[in-house]
Order: sequence, then C-alpha cells, then structure tokens
Amino acid sequence: MRRVVVVGGDAAGMSAAHQALRSARQHGRELEVTVLETTHDTSYSACGIPYWVSGEVGSREALVARTPAEHRRLGVDLRLGARAISVDPAARRVVYVGPEGEHRLDYDDLVVATGASALVPEWACAGPGTPAAGIQVVKTLDDGAWWLRELAEPGLRVVVAGGGYIGLEMAEALLARGHQVTLLTRSRVMSSLDEPMSGRVQAAVEAGGVTVHLGAAASGVERSADGALCAVRAGELRVAADLLVLALGVAPATGFLADLDVPRSSYGALRPDPQGRLADGLWAAGDCCEVRHRLTGEWVYLPLGTHANKMGRAVGENLGGGTLAFPGALGTAITRFAAGASYVEVARTGLGLEEARQHGLDAVETTTEGTTASGYHPAAEPIALSVIGERGTGRLLGAQIVGGRGSAKRIDTVATALWHGSTVLDLAWSDLAYAPPFATAWEFVSLAARRLAERL
Amino acid sequence: MRRVVVVGGDAAGMSAAHQALRSARQHGRELEVTVLETTHDTSYSACGIPYWVSGEVGSREALVARTPAEHRRLGVDLRLGARAISVDPAARRVVYVGPEGEHRLDYDDLVVATGASALVPEWACAGPGTPAAGIQVVKTLDDGAWWLRELAEPGLRVVVAGGGYIGLEMAEALLARGHQVTLLTRSRVMSSLDEPMSGRVQAAVEAGGVTVHLGAAASGVERSADGALCAVRAGELRVAADLLVLALGVAPATGFLADLDVPRSSYGALRPDPQGRLADGLWAAGDCCEVRHRLTGEWVYLPLGTHANKMGRAVGENLGGGTLAFPGALGTAITRFAAGASYVEVARTGLGLEEARQHGLDAVETTTEGTTASGYHPAAEPIALSVIGERGTGRLLGAQIVGGRGSAKRIDTVATALWHGSTVLDLAWSDLAYAPPFATAWEFVSLAARRLAERL
Repeated sequence: MRRVVVVGGDAAGMSAAHQALRSARQHGRELEVTVLETTHDTSYSACGIPYWVSGEVGSREALVARTPAEHRRLGVDLRLGARAISVDPAARRVVYVGPEGEHRLDYDDLVVATGASALVPEWACAGPGTPAAGIQVVKTLDDGAWWLRELAEPGLRVVVAGGGYIGLEMAEALLARGHQVTLLTRSRVMSSLDEPMSGRVQAAVEAGGVTVHLGAAASGVERSADGALCAVRAGELRVAADLLVLALGVAPATGFLADLDVPRSSYGALRPDPQGRLADGLWAAGDCCEVRHRLTGEWVYLPLGTHANKMGRAVGENLGGGTLAFPGALGTAITRFAAGASYVEVARTGLGLEEARQHGLDAVETTTEGTTASGYHPAAEPIALSVIGERGTGRLLGAQIVGGRGSAKRIDTVATALWHGSTVLDLAWSDLAYAPPFATAWEFVSLAARRLAERL
Repeated sequence: MRRVVVVGGDAAGMSAAHQALRSARQHGRELEVTVLETTHDTSYSACGIPYWVSGEVGSREALVARTPAEHRRLGVDLRLGARAISVDPAARRVVYVGPEGEHRLDYDDLVVATGASALVPEWACAGPGTPAAGIQVVKTLDDGAWWLRELAEPGLRVVVAGGGYIGLEMAEALLARGHQVTLLTRSRVMSSLDEPMSGRVQAAVEAGGVTVHLGAAASGVERSADGALCAVRAGELRVAADLLVLALGVAPATGFLADLDVPRSSYGALRPDPQGRLADGLWAAGDCCEVRHRLTGEWVYLPLGTHANKMGRAVGENLGGGTLAFPGALGTAITRFAAGASYVEVARTGLGLEEARQHGLDAVETTTEGTTASGYHPAAEPIALSVIGERGTGRLLGAQIVGGRGSAKRIDTVATALWHGSTVLDLAWSDLAYAPPFATAWEFVSLAARRLAERL
C-alpha cells in the first residue's frame, strides 16, 4: 500500500487526491491518500468570494464544491486544521501541527498543494501576516465572512488597494452593497492589459462610480484615537477610509519548504516538471507553483483555479500509475466590472504588446472596434479587440478584449488558436460561427485578425 | 485597363469587386469593375430577414450593409435589375437583360457570384420558381417585405416547411408576431445535428408553442373555393393553414452557366480552386459554389454569408494581383430559438457522429451537460455539448451545442481547435478563460473534451 500525503485541500490538492485514487484503481494499484488542510474548508472557490460579498451568491456553502464529508466518503483521509511545518525528504516524513498538537506522517509520495497567501504589506499587519483592524484580504471563506460582517451597513468609505482582477471584482461588490469606493493602483487599472485597453477598463470603472487613482501604491494607514481606520495613504495621497481591501496579489505558500533543495523561483514558487514532479517522491501543483508559458517557454506565476485543477489532476494521474503532463499556460484570464449602467467585460491571452517587445519580439498590434452581433440586431454589444502578432513570421502572439455583454469569452477563440501556434492570418480565415444575434458575417475575431494580418 | 465583370451584387460579389479594386491599387494595376445585380438591392443580410419579420430589426434599410450609391461611390460600375443570361467564355462576353433590354459586355475576368435561390417545389409554384398565393420563401428583402405585409394581423395559422436554420428562425418570428405555428420537417428538427441534440432543440421549440411534425415532408396544399390557402399536406398529414413558409433550403443559381464546361456538382454548384478560379478568365465565389471541407477534403455545399465574404475577398485579391486562397470550411453554424420562456441556442462544427461514421471513421461521441458559468453564480445557464472524436488517433472531429444564453458561441473554441487539427485531449487541456460569471474552473468545453478523451 503506497502512502500519498497531499498538503493542501483546495483545487490542486483535492484534484490530485481524487485523481490518484481513480488512476490507482484503473492501474490496479493500491494507494492510501491523506490530505492535510490548514483551514476547515475544502475545495472552495476563492474566485467566487467577491460575488458572495456582492450578494449575487447567497451563501458560503454555495462556494464549496466538495465538503470535507464528501471527500471522506470518496476515500480520502482528510485532516482539517492541520498545518504542515516541515518535510524531511530523505526520511519521507512530513511534520504537521493539528488540533491535538504535532504529528509525524510517513509518506511514499508527498504532494505540495499549499496554494498561495494574499500579500499583506508590513504597514497593514497587526501580527505576522495578519491584517490590522479595518483591513482585510480576499482569499479564504473566512475573509469573505469578515467582509460580509463589516459591510453590513451601507455608506462606508472603502479603499481598494490593487487594480487587478480581485480589486475590480471587490470594487463591483462594494458598489453593489452601497459603499463609496476608491481604487488605488500602483500602475494602472488591470495592468495585465496594455495601456490603451487598460484605459478603456478604467473609464468603465469610473463611470460605475469608483474614484480611481493611478500610480498610487498604498503605503500606510491613519487611525483615529480609538484605533479605528480613518485614512489610507499612497505616498502623498490621503484617502479617507473606513475599510481597506488588500488586493495586492498573492505569493506561493511554500515557507515550510524553505530548507529543501527543489527547483523554485526567487520568491518561492515551485517549479515542478510537466508531470508535477519536484524531486524523487516530491510533487507539486497549483498556486504554490509557477507554470511554463507556452509561447515564451519561461516560468510564469499564474495562480488560477483552472491551472491548479489541471496540475493537480496530472500529478494524481501520475501517482496512480498513469501518464499525464500539464502542457503549460497562455495567461488567459477574464473578468467583468458591473455597476449600474456601467458594464464591461475584460479578457486577455498570450503576450501583450509591451510584454512581447520585452521578450525581444518584433511585435505589431492592432485594435479593432466592432460589435458582438450584426450591427442591426438588438443583441449587438460593443467590443474592442487588440490583437498582437509577430512581423515576419506572421505568428499570433496574444489578444486583449474590452467590451459589453458576451464580448470577453471570445478570448477563447484566440487562446485556442495560440495554443496551436496559429498565424494571425489563419485566425482571420477560420470558420467561426455566424448568425445575426451572435456575430457579424466577418466574425469579429476574424475581422480583427485580418486587420492585423494586413500589417504584418 | 483590365475589365472585371461580377455577376451578383451581394456578399461574395461585392467582396470580390471591392477587394479587386483595393488589391489592384496595392499592386499598381488598373482595373475596371462592373457588377450586374438582378434585384435592386445590394449587400443585404438574408440571414437577418427573420429578425426583421419578428420586429427585432426595425427596417429593411437596416439589413443593407452597403447601398447601391455607396458601392458606386467606391468605384464600382453597378448595374441593377440586370440578369445575366449567358456567358461565352471563348469570346469573354456575358449577355444580360437589363431595364432597357439585352446587353453584351466584354470582360477579361468574369466572377460568378449569383448566390442561391430558395427551393420552391412544383406543387407550391404559380409560375416557374414563383410561389403561389399564400406561400413564400425567405431569401430576398422583397420576400421579407411580403411576410411583413401578410403577417400584419396576428392570429394566423402559419405552417413552416423545413426544420433547419431558416425554419426555426421564422418559427420564432411568427410566434413573436402572435401567430400559430406548425413546423413540418422531413426528418427531424435541425437535421444537421445528431438525433439526441436535435431532440433537445425540438423540445425547446415545442415548449415555445410550436406544433412539430417529424418525418413530415410538405407535399401539397389545399385551397378554398376563392383560391385562398386553407391547408398544407405532408403525405397523410393535413394541417389547416393561412400561410406557408418554404424553408426547404437553397440551390445554387447557376442555370445560366448550364452549357459551360466548368467543374461543378450534380446539382449545379460550382467548384472553383482555392483561389476562386473555375477556368481561364472565369471565377466563382459564394453561395453558387461548394467549398472544401477541411476535415474530409470533400466538396460540401455550405451556403453561408461568412464563406461568401471570404471567397469573394480571395477572388478579388487574386484579380487585383495579390495571392489569397480560401482555406475551406468546417461547417460551423449557429442559431437560436426564443419564444416566451423558451430559449435555446444551437451550434455545430465539423462532423457529426452519423456523418463521421458515414465517412468510415471510427468515431466516438460523448454528451456532457454543465453550465456556462460557475454553478453558484446567477449567470450560469445550462449547456449540453456533444464532442466527437476518432478512436486510435484521438483526433477531434466535431461538436454540437444546445444550451441557454451564452452557450452556443463556445462552438468557436472547438472550431478553432478543429481548424488546427487538434486532438480531443489537447482541447481538454487548453488554457481557456475562467472566472465565476463566465465559466467553470474546468472550462466546460475542456471538461466535455476531457470526458471524451477518457473514452478514446
């Protein structure tokens, strides 16, 4: 009986655990799978928290894909409130602190799936990594519950630090709950977009009622005599505030592995091989890892549930005797911002123009504006698509979308073309679906690609 | 000065005409472009007619992408009411009947872009190809105007003969106008789908209030003493009716070329090479042509504006001195049916299961049901995706979607993968966009592909 211990009971860890059991059954192996989870929640959607805070999702339970009981019923030995503190890879032993103190657990294979922790700058901390009064991150279900409690009464002044996905989604949630929102962002809104596309998103966010400060990295807070938060500072800027959302990104939760000699980035992200292997008997998957970018071949940090699920599945399949490799990623991402009459969808895939040029590529970009349906049809919504290609080779490099309802998911068409190393011209001439309520006769993605192809 | 004559002033013809002028300018050539158009309309959206009939589109003009005046302003010598009746390819001369009688026109290059005519069975005709009283097709803007006149008062009993795209779209339009609708279809509803997916569409159409008869090929009509339509027959079946929509498909309008020795199908569809050339000095594009299927390499008839635009553009580019080839098609198509609370989107691409097996392929299919967004998010709509792949090679062969709002356009992801010869597994592991309002963490297309991959 081979013993697999998985550290972390969310997307990657639980995918690994269950796929290991399935794969073992298929390959006639016997496997015992133990999962150590720090919190008391398993398999929950961190991405869904802003929609729970906004009220669109009605309950904490709705965000849980599988409860501890369900995992146990499926054969996983799940230990909650269990924090791994050290690993001895030579002895194949992991030490964790559980509700009844310190435990040692021997393993044959250890899967590190500890995910990531939200960044909390020192000035925002009460204790190590713990936000001070009036300040919170958006990472765990407990964080979500915290926000629901604090935001119960409308009309609060809330500052959001960070203009990325979580920042935008929380701004939407806060407006939906009737609060006043100020967004501070170090560079620009959605800095994973090139500047012109970022500007379109910013305009929609401002139109929705958010006060936006660019180039404003939150640097401290002010408190009243009773210790309550009263303002957030960003250099010279001072914004009066009752609450502060920290949406500054996440970092891999790999501190307990600091002594181990395994491939990792400067900031601790693990770098497993495509099968998920870090070293003999040691595996990793999910937000504690970097992934290989399909276009550049470089390691990139893309902490996202979709990769975590896939990486976990690959590790599990391999643990059970199968063969499966995580094929890398393109940096595809999507979100929306909705507030009153202001509605914008945002998506990206592959390399941006700046990014492509930083990689020494002779990149060319074209932004095309159009509609998601035939212009005469009431379903038509505006869409702007920035397509990036390489001069000379004609290779497709990436795309960014900002538009109305039904616009952003078109990024998948570009992502799929990118996945297969498509040229821009090939994307232009693809056979995409057309009917008046759904597209223009030159499908918009094709049209935008055609415009760029003419310039390559 | 090279003389190009284009026969047909809709999508393919006008794309060819304008691209020829652009391409000639780019390549320093002089070109004179004359377009002969039978009707008095140019560049109109035939696909949009049902939405004009339904009232979603407010005017005839809205369906016209470019008016005759606009075409002329862009340098096209446009002759309206001009029907080509014969071509002498040796003399390079075309004969047409215009408002002032018969004309001869010499050309260096002739582009046949005559499109297709709606099928009118003999029992439905008053004269050759002309529908009798109470019966009409849905092809030209004049047809649309006819329907709007006839349908002005609600409560009529309307029979739709044909369960394909136009049939479904007209059923929707008729219900929107308050009429009673009976749909007669020779085989099943949307027979371009495999039977189980077709059944899902049928259920939605019936839920929307349409009476559906399968296996019912319309075979005749009955008239009252005053000659008015009173019933439609389909073999033994008799359906009381005030009006009959003929949505039985279209046939290439190539009768005037019957004597020419050019590559064509048994039913008259032209078969130009990828550049659009039929013979020396003779070109063709659009709905009068077949296209090459990318997967089977076979000629298929896919009369659709999106191919017409592309084929016309390729011909025009080549006429002006450039080089451009139409790369074939996959049979991607999309539509919807909406009536009251019943709403369904439908899409397909590539080969169906039946079709693949008819081609001797060892095809396997899996239908997966899921949601377009995270199950806990209010944006989640049902989606069913049938994915077809080849055993052994693991090659992706096709897909069909039936689902709610925002479901069907996901077909483009599959179409793009197919375009690049993807395996089913590669589609499963692609980097598609995920966020709770837009997708599940295992993006639904990937999930469905993964399920099929496990069976290949």
